[in-house]
Amino acid sequence: MIKIGIIGFGNWGPKLVRNFTENNSCVVKKVADQNKDRLAMLQKIHPAIEGVMLTDEIIKDPGIDAVVIASPLHTHYELAHKALERGKHILIEKPMTSTSEQAMRLIEFAGKKQKVLMVDHTLLYTGAVQKIKELVDNGEIGKLNYFDASRINLGSFQPDVNVLWDLASHDLSILNFLYREKPVGVNATGISHTGNRVENIAYLTLKYQSGFIAHFNCSWSSPVKIRLILIGGDKKMIVFNDLEPTEKIKVHDTGYTYKLNEGKYNIHVDYHKGDIHIPKINLREALNSMTADFMSAIINKTTPVSDFNSGLEVTRILEASQTSIKNNGKEVILQ
Amino acid sequence: MIKIGIIGFGNWGPKLVRNFTENNSCVVKKVADQNKDRLAMLQKIHPAIEGVMLTDEIIKDPGIDAVVIASPLHTHYELAHKALERGKHILIEKPMTSTSEQAMRLIEFAGKKQKVLMVDHTLLYTGAVQKIKELVDNGEIGKLNYFDASRINLGSFQPDVNVLWDLASHDLSILNFLYREKPVGVNATGISHTGNRVENIAYLTLKYQSGFIAHFNCSWSSPVKIRLILIGGDKKMIVFNDLEPTEKIKVHDTGYTYKLNEGKYNIHVDYHKGDIHIPKINLREALNSMTADFMSAIINKTTPVSDFNSGLEVTRILEASQTSIKNNGKEVILQ
Amino acid sequence: MIKIGIIGFGNWGPKLVRNFTENNSCVVKKVADQNKDRLAMLQKIHPAIEGVMLTDEIIKDPGIDAVVIASPLHTHYELAHKALERGKHILIEKPMTSTSEQAMRLIEFAGKKQKVLMVDHTLLYTGAVQKIKELVDNGEIGKLNYFDASRINLGSFQPDVNVLWDLASHDLSILNFLYREKPVGVNATGISHTGNRVENIAYLTLKYQSGFIAHFNCSWSSPVKIRLILIGGDKKMIVFNDLEPTEKIKVHDTGYTYKLNEGKYNIHVDYHKGDIHIPKINLREALNSMTADFMSAIINKTTPVSDFNSGLEVTRILEASQTSIKNNGKEVILQ
Amino acid sequence: MIKIGIIGFGNWGPKLVRNFTENNSCVVKKVADQNKDRLAMLQKIHPAIEGVMLTDEIIKDPGIDAVVIASPLHTHYELAHKALERGKHILIEKPMTSTSEQAMRLIEFAGKKQKVLMVDHTLLYTGAVQKIKELVDNGEIGKLNYFDASRINLGSFQPDVNVLWDLASHDLSILNFLYREKPVGVNATGISHTGNRVENIAYLTLKYQSGFIAHFNCSWSSPVKIRLILIGGDKKMIVFNDLEPTEKIKVHDTGYTYKLNEGKYNIHVDYHKGDIHIPKINLREALNSMTADFMSAIINKTTPVSDFNSGLEVTRILEASQTSIKNNGKEVILQ
Repeated sequence: MIKIGIIGFGNWGPKLVRNFTENNSCVVKKVADQNKDRLAMLQKIHPAIEGVMLTDEIIKDPGIDAVVIASPLHTHYELAHKALERGKHILIEKPMTSTSEQAMRLIEFAGKKQKVLMVDHTLLYTGAVQKIKELVDNGEIGKLNYFDASRINLGSFQPDVNVLWDLASHDLSILNFLYREKPVGVNATGISHTGNRVENIAYLTLKYQSGFIAHFNCSWSSPVKIRLILIGGDKKMIVFNDLEPTEKIKVHDTGYTYKLNEGKYNIHVDYHKGDIHIPKINLREALNSMTADFMSAIINKTTPVSDFNSGLEVTRILEASQTSIKNNGKEVILQ
Repeated sequence: MIKIGIIGFGNWGPKLVRNFTENNSCVVKKVADQNKDRLAMLQKIHPAIEGVMLTDEIIKDPGIDAVVIASPLHTHYELAHKALERGKHILIEKPMTSTSEQAMRLIEFAGKKQKVLMVDHTLLYTGAVQKIKELVDNGEIGKLNYFDASRINLGSFQPDVNVLWDLASHDLSILNFLYREKPVGVNATGISHTGNRVENIAYLTLKYQSGFIAHFNCSWSSPVKIRLILIGGDKKMIVFNDLEPTEKIKVHDTGYTYKLNEGKYNIHVDYHKGDIHIPKINLREALNSMTADFMSAIINKTTPVSDFNSGLEVTRILEASQTSIKNNGKEVILQ
Repeated sequence: MIKIGIIGFGNWGPKLVRNFTENNSCVVKKVADQNKDRLAMLQKIHPAIEGVMLTDEIIKDPGIDAVVIASPLHTHYELAHKALERGKHILIEKPMTSTSEQAMRLIEFAGKKQKVLMVDHTLLYTGAVQKIKELVDNGEIGKLNYFDASRINLGSFQPDVNVLWDLASHDLSILNFLYREKPVGVNATGISHTGNRVENIAYLTLKYQSGFIAHFNCSWSSPVKIRLILIGGDKKMIVFNDLEPTEKIKVHDTGYTYKLNEGKYNIHVDYHKGDIHIPKINLREALNSMTADFMSAIINKTTPVSDFNSGLEVTRILEASQTSIKNNGKEVILQ
Repeated sequence: MIKIGIIGFGNWGPKLVRNFTENNSCVVKKVADQNKDRLAMLQKIHPAIEGVMLTDEIIKDPGIDAVVIASPLHTHYELAHKALERGKHILIEKPMTSTSEQAMRLIEFAGKKQKVLMVDHTLLYTGAVQKIKELVDNGEIGKLNYFDASRINLGSFQPDVNVLWDLASHDLSILNFLYREKPVGVNATGISHTGNRVENIAYLTLKYQSGFIAHFNCSWSSPVKIRLILIGGDKKMIVFNDLEPTEKIKVHDTGYTYKLNEGKYNIHVDYHKGDIHIPKINLREALNSMTADFMSAIINKTTPVSDFNSGLEVTRILEASQTSIKNNGKEVILQ
């Protein structure tokens, strides 16, 4: 029985506690939060779990095997490093760290300590993303041409990271999961309407050597919630609407072929619009699979789907996006 | 009775012919197209209109008062200039010209000739955009913070202009109609998947002195058609979905207020989600109103809603977007 | 060249005129309407067609080969009969006649006169209904279990026939087209909110020997427009939403199997929800195909898809529904 | 602290347990279920609650104050009666009992015992239904003309009651809550596709002295889930789509006025389509409010929103519907 300590009982914490509780390989021993009301709520729902105010009560507890870090981003690196020092396995909520350098240091340190270091990109565990991965990998979509994500809603403004770190991190993890080529150019623009230089609306474009392009539209200031990803292949195209209760993925037998002819302005394009297919997807709760994957990584030494490389790559791109925003959208070259 | 000559009987031409035919102030005398099949089709539907192959048969016809230019963009300037020389009133399909310099020359020349020079930004005549204009102008939305447009579909690839010239021109005309501040910075990125340097997917961001931001997502390569504009004010927000048959506009009583506190990472944001209002909109065909506006400009010397300044401003921004794309997304400063 | 006379230039008339005009086998010679404004409008759009006020100017015109009857239902029988007497081919707008006896008389008389008698159930010519027919006929859906149609909107109240005659007639023609078994029992209920005993809301159920059931929900008093048909087979189920611009048909690989066990209240049901398929459908205008079918029936003596038997069957069921409504929903037995 | 015993830990049971657990006025002491797997699951999630196999362990436990009956319908009466005998307060899941006579007996017995007898028509506690009630009561909708409910999905076939008892019971409770006139005529038709005379598809119409009409379309055999209620008033109309995450209610400023003129077939109808309003609704979990209402009824002797009269009225109509189905849809007169 793996003993779990969870740091942070905000929005996400209760879901983590519930899912780790339901997992048969582990037991949640302690939860830390600085907010007494949150701890009181914990007590009511989960009377068997100890609530603590100091993170050290978890990190320094020799009876705890694994630490789940669900606190604000700027605390991730330090908490994870301290917990690794004490020999804990680590699960960090996304995004992994504030800088790619921190991410690399943690990866190295976890390797040295031979402990699991995993990042919770929950969406990779959804039936929808798993199904898209399958469609991409089996060649049904063909060569990918673009990835276009919109993730907008009202709230929740973060104090320390902008809307790309908060929201695009989800879509970046999905893109990185589906498509292995690395971007070479990063352009981002955005605006802060709150006077604290934390962008609440931002746009990110990734360019690739192959001609693939990815775009991310993120906002905390939208009156409507949108969770939409379009993926264009040269055989088929996918529309992934995560707000649909069951018909989340539509595979369109849609495309075009073109012929460039002699002379300026001379292109002939043929369009094709065929059937649409809505594959059945597994509706198992993603967090449930994620916790199982963390347990398996600890117990069976398997590599988790959402591993530290995923966490590092997402951080690397977000870091570049921030540089681009500061340089008025100028392209940042990644090697 | 104003005598009309229409150049170009492609996709848009038949709609122009029908609408000018239904207008009581004018009669369509000639239509020019190089494609014989198109002229045969004209003959069948409108036996009373003369089909011609050469544009000069319209431009040089002294019996024609006004010329409608619905041919490819790269022909606009020359045709309009020649027709103005012959003393015709001019209606040009959007976008107005290939460069802002051409647009300015035409405006100057039309002024000298005292002829109407109008650009057909049809969407400005829709009941939906008229209603949004009303909501913005009467202060209901408050100070505008952002404008976010998605206009994507499969096709129709243009040979001579990229997807921003083709599609963003619509949204730019709407933005320009609603919001009078001029952008100071233009960033654009895009990709051509057809090897002819004509982008089929592109993204455009406009930045403004005031903190307003506008973004445009355009694609000819999407499996689904989307026509969505979000407009965020500090009082209310508008969602304009032009594919909805009647419920095109939703006015959300949605917003947030924030307070920056002492200390790093210290912001308090309150969210507000109230009622949504779907105003009734006039469903009159936009082209019908546009043709009436052109007639009124000729007969009553009124200033059309979609005038040459609108045409110029849209061209100016598209031109800057093209420069930005060529410079890998680097900001182009507009004065 | 078949010469056509059209009686009635109300809502539907202009569409008929346009489609017959575009058909290469015929020419519209005359259109009759008692409303001078409608005739003036005809003149403007179609200057070559003669507008007349009296139906006799069409029926007695020896230069006219075929008469299209698009006038109110209670005039259908008499007009059709008179036109058949004069040797015209007949196309009647749905529903065919006010009674099944009238329908049978017309069928007999047309047979004697050897003239085409066709009823315009336009929906049978839509790509969507054609595709559903194909799916049903090729066995993909399996044995049909039910048909459930909702056809509701605001307006348009008819003075002489209730909402079932107006709206359910469409769905009944589709059902009759797809499914050959005849109903044995008819139940209908409804209400008139206008004090003239013409129901503006009504519900119709058809029962069949085999256990198949069909239901129709019709209203002129709904704030929203709905055009939805569900078809349940024992292999798959179809959802047909005619208001969707392109994704009109969804074929659900959905079903259930059951086992009755010993003892009261002992049934075991297994559910199955698999993929959904959205077949591409032909988007050709239905009226265009309908006019072509009428022409083919006249010229090539083919049997139209929407023939008089379809017209008779629909009338027979509507007649029974009226009897049931008058008897407070009591079942009417059909033989 | 009220001590609660819950009978039945099937689909609904876990939600009841969670909500009673979260209520501050009570504690869940025991849960009964015949299925050992269900009890094991209870143990894992709620280690502090005792699981039992026999209902008597709850009913005869003097330490239990209130019994919640979430077992199959045919067990309701007997369990409730026995529990009342022992002086327990009773909450019965809808529908209340198998017959209206049983319902009346329970009501009388609870009165004699001076115990709370409440029926859980959960939907009455949703923010949406509460908002509709408000709109109807404050006169905004005007005089009601019709109520039209569709509640269809795949599953879950019940062994002992047909689809009207299972699904229409929800809509009947809403109708009864909103509209106080009692129906005078009940027509129902339906079909059993499972050979056990339990209808899996059924249609119900209620007629009222005033001209109001209500219709219910219920199915366990639909490939899609629909939860749609239309309510037509003579001022405005409401569309309630319970599957919309937030925009559940649309109030349409839609209607018509009519004038009957002299002569047959002579009615003039004017239509009106104005703005649509989407009121904000309270998104508090309905079960949470329901449990609070039950507690208040016990502690403060308040009358619950979903009281036994609601339970009786729904049962009375369902009973009549069953008679009508058996008589091939013949109207059942209610006094």
